[in-house]
Amino acid sequence: MDSWGTRPKRVAVIGGGLVGSLNACFLAKRNFQVDVYEAREDIRVAQLARGRSINLALSHRGRQALKALGLEDQIVSQGIPMRARMIHSFSGKKSAIPYGTKSQYILSISRTNLNKDLLTAVERYPNAKVYFGHRLLTCNLEEGTITVLGSDKVPTDVTYDLIVGCDGAYSTVRSFLMKKPRFDYSQQYIPHGYMELTIPPRDGDFAMEPNYLHIWPRNTFMMIALPNKNKTFTCTLFMPFEDFEKLQTSRDVLDFFHKHFPDAVPLMGEQALARDFFLLPAQAMISVKCSPFHFKSRCMLMGDAAHAIVPFFGQGMNAGFEDCLVFDELMEKFNNDLSVCLPEFSRFRIPDDHAVSDLSMYNYVEVTFSRIRYHEAVLRWRWQKKVINKGFFLFGTLVAIGSAYLLLRSTAPRRLDYLRGPWDWVTSLQHSLKTPWSL
Amino acid sequence: MDSWGTRPKRVAVIGGGLVGSLNACFLAKRNFQVDVYEAREDIRVAQLARGRSINLALSHRGRQALKALGLEDQIVSQGIPMRARMIHSFSGKKSAIPYGTKSQYILSISRTNLNKDLLTAVERYPNAKVYFGHRLLTCNLEEGTITVLGSDKVPTDVTYDLIVGCDGAYSTVRSFLMKKPRFDYSQQYIPHGYMELTIPPRDGDFAMEPNYLHIWPRNTFMMIALPNKNKTFTCTLFMPFEDFEKLQTSRDVLDFFHKHFPDAVPLMGEQALARDFFLLPAQAMISVKCSPFHFKSRCMLMGDAAHAIVPFFGQGMNAGFEDCLVFDELMEKFNNDLSVCLPEFSRFRIPDDHAVSDLSMYNYVEVTFSRIRYHEAVLRWRWQKKVINKGFFLFGTLVAIGSAYLLLRSTAPRRLDYLRGPWDWVTSLQHSLKTPWSL
Repeated sequence: MDSWGTRPKRVAVIGGGLVGSLNACFLAKRNFQVDVYEAREDIRVAQLARGRSINLALSHRGRQALKALGLEDQIVSQGIPMRARMIHSFSGKKSAIPYGTKSQYILSISRTNLNKDLLTAVERYPNAKVYFGHRLLTCNLEEGTITVLGSDKVPTDVTYDLIVGCDGAYSTVRSFLMKKPRFDYSQQYIPHGYMELTIPPRDGDFAMEPNYLHIWPRNTFMMIALPNKNKTFTCTLFMPFEDFEKLQTSRDVLDFFHKHFPDAVPLMGEQALARDFFLLPAQAMISVKCSPFHFKSRCMLMGDAAHAIVPFFGQGMNAGFEDCLVFDELMEKFNNDLSVCLPEFSRFRIPDDHAVSDLSMYNYVEVTFSRIRYHEAVLRWRWQKKVINKGFFLFGTLVAIGSAYLLLRSTAPRRLDYLRGPWDWVTSLQHSLKTPWSL
Repeated sequence: MDSWGTRPKRVAVIGGGLVGSLNACFLAKRNFQVDVYEAREDIRVAQLARGRSINLALSHRGRQALKALGLEDQIVSQGIPMRARMIHSFSGKKSAIPYGTKSQYILSISRTNLNKDLLTAVERYPNAKVYFGHRLLTCNLEEGTITVLGSDKVPTDVTYDLIVGCDGAYSTVRSFLMKKPRFDYSQQYIPHGYMELTIPPRDGDFAMEPNYLHIWPRNTFMMIALPNKNKTFTCTLFMPFEDFEKLQTSRDVLDFFHKHFPDAVPLMGEQALARDFFLLPAQAMISVKCSPFHFKSRCMLMGDAAHAIVPFFGQGMNAGFEDCLVFDELMEKFNNDLSVCLPEFSRFRIPDDHAVSDLSMYNYVEVTFSRIRYHEAVLRWRWQKKVINKGFFLFGTLVAIGSAYLLLRSTAPRRLDYLRGPWDWVTSLQHSLKTPWSL
């Protein structure tokens, strides 16, 4: 018998993506009766269209969450260690900038494979079940009742003790929380879009050095490439939408790449590049913040549903995984008492998730795409933090801001004394956060 | 025949409140076929429950919009001029601080009466019709089709050339815009709530000087009182929710008022105060920003639906009315071409509406409820503007911020040289904006 009484509590996890499936494992391990509702079909059996996900970089926080479930070794064995960034200059010159000490690295991970493994891990719990092809229609948060639509197209009501929204940046669960009084929310699209391209293997091996995160920084745009197990690289081009729109023909695309990424063109292949560029339009990137993350003891948000962030800090999945771990630790501490753990999760976690969101946006604005001098960036960051205290997100960000501010005050100026390369400041921040990050 | 061809274009205005009904007049005057959908019953015939609206202060911008429709004189004649603030100190001492020159004043207006007059004005246009008791269910923004539910409880689809969301801070129209790509949005609740109370007439006349906006500034909370035509005052108490919650009994309430507003208690009457305080709970205040305000040539937002602001700048209704006037001026300039006027309205108006939102929030945070020294407030404001440029609302606020920044740089420090009373800085800002404001 579990600690809360005779009937196992029932939990609905909305979304069977990375955070949803990981969370389902944590909850199942605590003897909840867990139902996961995923709108898509089972990715382990369905033939997928070309994905639209930015490559994943698994780092310390994400690994700690996997470790708590005994999944770390399995997942890590399928990743490719990236021990440094490899900066590609215009001239084709390459220079490596390590992430940290020799033993520190981040892992390039396939989103699809990771998701498959996590779904399989969920299904190993006899008290957990995944309902694929089930879409959430409505949520009654007061009652804990959800209405889902399965393949039979008959809306079905089910009542749960807890509803966990892990349904991503465009969360349906969150849209019901938004209707509750005093729920703060913001969504912001950045002017950049992203597009994924491929560098195929060359002579059966990686076409570039595999154990690096390759970066072509180009002021207002940039390209990165992460290695895959099949010896390809997935390239992601980040560029303002208005610049994407200028590239209308194959000729435009090839001219653009020859001009800005001359060393990448022969690796991608002109023909493949000119074709792949038009397979999918550039995708938008959204930054979402909200507060609180919960409603009474009935409903909570985790992962992108709670805090979708722009990808320039390499922490999206890692922050989502850490959400699950933090909640699990609270459940341990407070003996699975949902009426304590949900408000405590909001109180404790929102400052951190808002901070990682601010850091990601800050990095996007000040570091990645601007040429602002770094000491100015630090000064601006401090002021930004001080000021955002006052204006936006009055509730919740205070602690986040405070910590980030103290953190920067204590470490950044010191590090700035021996600034050498363009990523050093970034590296110092990464050290301060005690986690490597991907860009 | 109108300028765009033979068939008059059809417009649905969602919401028959202040901005909706004013906008319907503007559009009807341009020979659109206008249908206004209002969820409530006709306030001119229905017996209303006690209102939940903060008192209105009509100022220059609002009057200009009414003037363009020939309604200014009628509305102004029903208002009560307030030529100065009357500050009530703890000791009961009163000091007047004029809004500007002797000829400058703002008007205390009854929201209900104004709304009634505007609805009657709409119905004077033969090409306009108001559907009361009609609730918007869904919007197909691509097609211009709305589904409304009238008293017959049968959902009805109607297709329009243009859908104008004037449905307030919790806009349903906006919720459909939010689902469109790259729509930026934020909603933020402030920690203060508000509650309306009454000072009845005394011996058949106003119990205090009528031509003032009375203010009891009390650091973290404050009360204001605006005069009504029936010789009552409507008082509004602004206070953190957590402080409201401390007042649980009539005794608590009377003790609190005797302590903080000793001169107001005999005017309100102990018995009435102790009763009225518990009639309605304290109401929340939300600040909403979004961008863009339009979708293609099909849909747009105006008033609180586009930019609900906190009331501490006295500009909510005035900004909404000016939206209508600005759009009308664009329609005049661009010959009623919706495909030009809608994007132009977003481009032109968003910076101003975001600026008034920032000024309102800024005033709430820095001036109204804090004891920060004013020159610090100015410095912070500048930094805030500079920094928010970078982080939040990348699109659109740039111009707003720039103007506010230039404005403050050009006027505030100079004015600070002869700072005398607590509202002078605020007065200087008001002069800079060339409009009086209410607090």
